[in-house]
Amino acid sequence: MPAPSIDFFFTMGSTYSYLTVMRLPEVERASGLVFRWRPFHLLTILNEMKHVPFADKPAKMNYMWRDVGRRAAMHGIPVKLPAPYPAKQSVFANQVALLGMREGWGQAFIREAYRQWFQLGLETGSEPNVSASLHAIGQDPAPIMERARSDDVGQALSNETDRARALGIFGSPNFVVDGELFWGDDRLEDAVSWAKLRRVK
Amino acid sequence: MPAPSIDFFFTMGSTYSYLTVMRLPEVERASGLVFRWRPFHLLTILNEMKHVPFADKPAKMNYMWRDVGRRAAMHGIPVKLPAPYPAKQSVFANQVALLGMREGWGQAFIREAYRQWFQLGLETGSEPNVSASLHAIGQDPAPIMERARSDDVGQALSNETDRARALGIFGSPNFVVDGELFWGDDRLEDAVSWAKLRRVK
Repeated sequence: MPAPSIDFFFTMGSTYSYLTVMRLPEVERASGLVFRWRPFHLLTILNEMKHVPFADKPAKMNYMWRDVGRRAAMHGIPVKLPAPYPAKQSVFANQVALLGMREGWGQAFIREAYRQWFQLGLETGSEPNVSASLHAIGQDPAPIMERARSDDVGQALSNETDRARALGIFGSPNFVVDGELFWGDDRLEDAVSWAKLRRVK
Repeated sequence: MPAPSIDFFFTMGSTYSYLTVMRLPEVERASGLVFRWRPFHLLTILNEMKHVPFADKPAKMNYMWRDVGRRAAMHGIPVKLPAPYPAKQSVFANQVALLGMREGWGQAFIREAYRQWFQLGLETGSEPNVSASLHAIGQDPAPIMERARSDDVGQALSNETDRARALGIFGSPNFVVDGELFWGDDRLEDAVSWAKLRRVK
């Protein structure tokens, strides 16, 4: 029986998702598993929960940057911290990412937008990050940014957010294996283990 | 240069701290490091932050039990979930634990109280958990429970909570190595690595 694919649900405004976005290609290669990249708009779900992960909690936010920095170093991922946070236009970043996943340039855009955010200090979802990221991956920014603002893409993002909520998702990144939810970059290895062995090792 | 000791700051009402309490003796043996067990009253800090980790967030709470269950299985720790939550008298559990750390029976009590909570379903800090846990470790419950309610112990718990806050602590369990904070049972190995190498590996 082939190993199942893993749904990678993430939101472009998430800090810890930077680690996953940067290391997932190597995890895919090493594990032989396929990850489906599925952007959704976490902020909708957080607002429904009345939950603010970091922005109004200074101790938690300070810890988050320190922890992200330590783990980036562990994985050999460059990082300049703190990055601008929270990202005010994360919904637009998610719309562009979703459009990109449809059109085949999504992973390249997502990695470049995160690189600009976490290595150059340019806020994701806002200018110049979006245009520059699209340009860097060889896409023409203007028509893409217009399509990303369409009702069609907005509705698709809303549908993906509904699917995330139905799976019990409340944060980012997430890995879903046959309905089993793993939350956090630090659960990526648990998800890989689950896909292969149906247990965490 | 000898490896530094690690401060293990925890609160008896914490669910993930069950995993740490049960596996810490083996981690101490394997690492050669010394952990100082320091109960504090997290609820004071959470109230100041206006932060409720799980109780008003059903998706997050459901995930927490599932994650604790998977990781308990990974570590070979027995568990019957969900355990009663939140524990209404966690302050008293912390007072008894702090008194026990002073008097030399603290770790035994803490492990037994967690065992009764997470394996037998008896809420920590309330009866019959406290009396039965003290009895099980060969202590006379009545005089201990009276001493645990003293102003002296209450003040000491408040002081430890102040120290936790000053270290940037906002959850449980925590591992502090020379001022470097690691939060979560899943960061225990990071703390051990930091104590030995001054980096996370």
